[in-house]
Amino acid sequence: MQNIKQYIADNKQRFLDELFELLKFPSVSADPKYKADVLSTAAYVAAKLTEAGAEHVEVCATAGYPIVFGEKIIDPALPTVLVYGHYDVQPPDPLELWETPPFEPVIRDGKIFARGACDDKGQFYMHVKAFELMIETGTLPCNIKFMIEGEEEVGSNNLGIFVGAEKERLKADVVLISDTAMISLEHPSLETGLRGLTYLEVEVTGPDRDLHSGVYGGAVANPATILAKMIASLHDDQNRITIPGFYDDVDDLSAAERDALNQAPYDEDAYKADLGVNALWGEEGYTTIERTGTRPTLEVNGIWSGYIGEGAKTVLPSKANAKISMRLVPHQQSGKIFELFKTHFEKIAPPYVKVKITPHHGGEPVVTPTDSIAFRAAEKAVEEAFGKKPIPTRGGGSIPIVSLFEQELGIKTVLMGFGLDSDNLHSPNEKFDVANFYKGIETIPLFHKYYAALMKAN
Amino acid sequence: MQNIKQYIADNKQRFLDELFELLKFPSVSADPKYKADVLSTAAYVAAKLTEAGAEHVEVCATAGYPIVFGEKIIDPALPTVLVYGHYDVQPPDPLELWETPPFEPVIRDGKIFARGACDDKGQFYMHVKAFELMIETGTLPCNIKFMIEGEEEVGSNNLGIFVGAEKERLKADVVLISDTAMISLEHPSLETGLRGLTYLEVEVTGPDRDLHSGVYGGAVANPATILAKMIASLHDDQNRITIPGFYDDVDDLSAAERDALNQAPYDEDAYKADLGVNALWGEEGYTTIERTGTRPTLEVNGIWSGYIGEGAKTVLPSKANAKISMRLVPHQQSGKIFELFKTHFEKIAPPYVKVKITPHHGGEPVVTPTDSIAFRAAEKAVEEAFGKKPIPTRGGGSIPIVSLFEQELGIKTVLMGFGLDSDNLHSPNEKFDVANFYKGIETIPLFHKYYAALMKAN
Repeated sequence: MQNIKQYIADNKQRFLDELFELLKFPSVSADPKYKADVLSTAAYVAAKLTEAGAEHVEVCATAGYPIVFGEKIIDPALPTVLVYGHYDVQPPDPLELWETPPFEPVIRDGKIFARGACDDKGQFYMHVKAFELMIETGTLPCNIKFMIEGEEEVGSNNLGIFVGAEKERLKADVVLISDTAMISLEHPSLETGLRGLTYLEVEVTGPDRDLHSGVYGGAVANPATILAKMIASLHDDQNRITIPGFYDDVDDLSAAERDALNQAPYDEDAYKADLGVNALWGEEGYTTIERTGTRPTLEVNGIWSGYIGEGAKTVLPSKANAKISMRLVPHQQSGKIFELFKTHFEKIAPPYVKVKITPHHGGEPVVTPTDSIAFRAAEKAVEEAFGKKPIPTRGGGSIPIVSLFEQELGIKTVLMGFGLDSDNLHSPNEKFDVANFYKGIETIPLFHKYYAALMKAN
Repeated sequence: MQNIKQYIADNKQRFLDELFELLKFPSVSADPKYKADVLSTAAYVAAKLTEAGAEHVEVCATAGYPIVFGEKIIDPALPTVLVYGHYDVQPPDPLELWETPPFEPVIRDGKIFARGACDDKGQFYMHVKAFELMIETGTLPCNIKFMIEGEEEVGSNNLGIFVGAEKERLKADVVLISDTAMISLEHPSLETGLRGLTYLEVEVTGPDRDLHSGVYGGAVANPATILAKMIASLHDDQNRITIPGFYDDVDDLSAAERDALNQAPYDEDAYKADLGVNALWGEEGYTTIERTGTRPTLEVNGIWSGYIGEGAKTVLPSKANAKISMRLVPHQQSGKIFELFKTHFEKIAPPYVKVKITPHHGGEPVVTPTDSIAFRAAEKAVEEAFGKKPIPTRGGGSIPIVSLFEQELGIKTVLMGFGLDSDNLHSPNEKFDVANFYKGIETIPLFHKYYAALMKAN
């Protein structure tokens, strides 16, 4: 532990400088205009892995953005940890709400502000630096493989293909991911589940062109109004989702499981104050912790129709569109939920409009085991670094690839995240505490140490 | 009549060339980026009025865009016609749906395609050319004043001030406006009423920043969903507007009046086919003609929230916005309707969101008299030019200033429009039939002739 702290202290500024370089790349995978930047990011990650001591580093081409692979095999007889992360980021919109530009990282109040600071550049880069530390201090206790992708924010479709095709190269005993949150530095926690995702887009068409709202208003269905009515009908009075069959496969938690989850520290007033809302909203009969961690949801991620510029335009629009996503819990299936949504949405469309539903991407929900050697190693590492036993929590976000690792590689995942829920992931002013960044670099070598030791003892 | 036809035949191409010049100015009043173009348009209109023979031509400054004034007083003892029109146009968005660029006029299939072709450049310019014709052929039978404004599409607020301040200069016996539609060249018609307008914008705020829809989804109200629910609730199952008091002042038509209106030719199958819809929508218990002409309506003119770019972003938005307008009928009042909407919308807002309602502009509904000398003159002019008596109709659109002319100047208006409902006003590919343009120039001198004669005989 002492040599870990010393190495971090000796390289503090350089670690941060390198992360800042990484954060300056606008690696937005969703928007084709950033293509060259996303590719440059992959090259930067590969270079840094090599510098840190990884071998066989390769920027592996895919049908989309490349996957950066690297490894250090010190002894084939020792266990192997596969570290997964992603170098792509969410779009920075709405730009005008950023206090400082999203791709010009700065530190304010001990926090790094930049798109990707927490999700996931700041977090996967802790692994690169922890790896360097173990190499430089001669303390790497097991084999390690890195797989850092560039399409996590758009559904990881090509990673799925890559994993299926590269089973030998990716062979490992456990997957280790830092792309989730902990409660706080005072309340360290480990996520033991992730929600799945079905993301789609709907288009409602009324008249075949935009119309004058005076000449035609009142006689022709307005697709914006109809889409509003259709969206409004997707939740009932208890804020439950009305799509027939939607809850059929939902794994209801036992009373004991619910009790355990609700032991996590949660202050409703602080939660509301942080978000600037007077009241919370959610499915009746569940707590906030349950709603975000164990219940499926349906959200409008975007909606647009008609004239949205300055001033006024008296138009009756031809089309109305929405991006809608559903978070899924075990044992819902992304593809099945898409079909249920599509069938329902087409059914509720009134005769005066046409609807088109297009899938974007999806991912399956996962629950990670809490009785595995890897999870125990993570618990011990966090406890030693933070001085407190971590609380198990359920994460509301999705990392679509986790369930695929299990299916394709037959291995489980440990989610050892160091972000905070309040880090503005996917929002303006995304941030990551500098303290959490260093604490992560400190915890990761301990994970490897305990994992190797427990595997040996097993 | 023969000299009218001859003069038009002799100047056919020049009339069209001048209109094309006028249509090339992108005089979009709603969007500040077109400011210089709107001002240039005013200067062009003033120059053309002068060339046609108007005197005291002035580009009158206002707090917004200027009003172009010009006149020809041949004898103070004769009646005076005040011609009103507007040189500003609607925004051309969505640009990608135009077959040819909105400000590069072209003729296809006998129709002029350009933003403003019908609304209102093509129509007010008929008056400028009819005036030139009467001057050149020595047939102007009465005094004429022109008032062509540049803010009709954004509510005419500064015209209201101008009219109030310039009563002497604007003194006239009747207002003549061509900014409405007729049924067709085969079924000439005259509008005898216009709907009023209340245009506003709503903003619904949930959390104080965009959130990650996985981390917070299910626990915090999504303003896009809430706005959808609020908009959905504004119409009931009979498609009636649910705002308390909304219909209180509506002037219900008698059975005889309704019968008369429904005599106008209307082919529902053709109407649906033209719009590409399988079914119509509207307030139960009324025909399409009644719905668009005599009943108030509420339309979403624009809605936006969250991520609306390429690809997917799993965001739970902070804000959702909509532009909403209501068309009003006698004796609804624009200001009162705004207050009713605001009170209702604030009342239905659930505790987990904040709402802000901002007025854009408004206008009062009008009914023009059908027993006046001016209306009889218009009927006779149309009958002579088209060979058929015009059908009285009620227009669904709004020209907010008409009721103000009545209040401030104490004079009535005649709506002698030559557009068609299908001219794509406010839509991509706005058009105006070349034949209607020339027919208008032919009809207008006849109006002046009959108006002067009937006034003299009176």
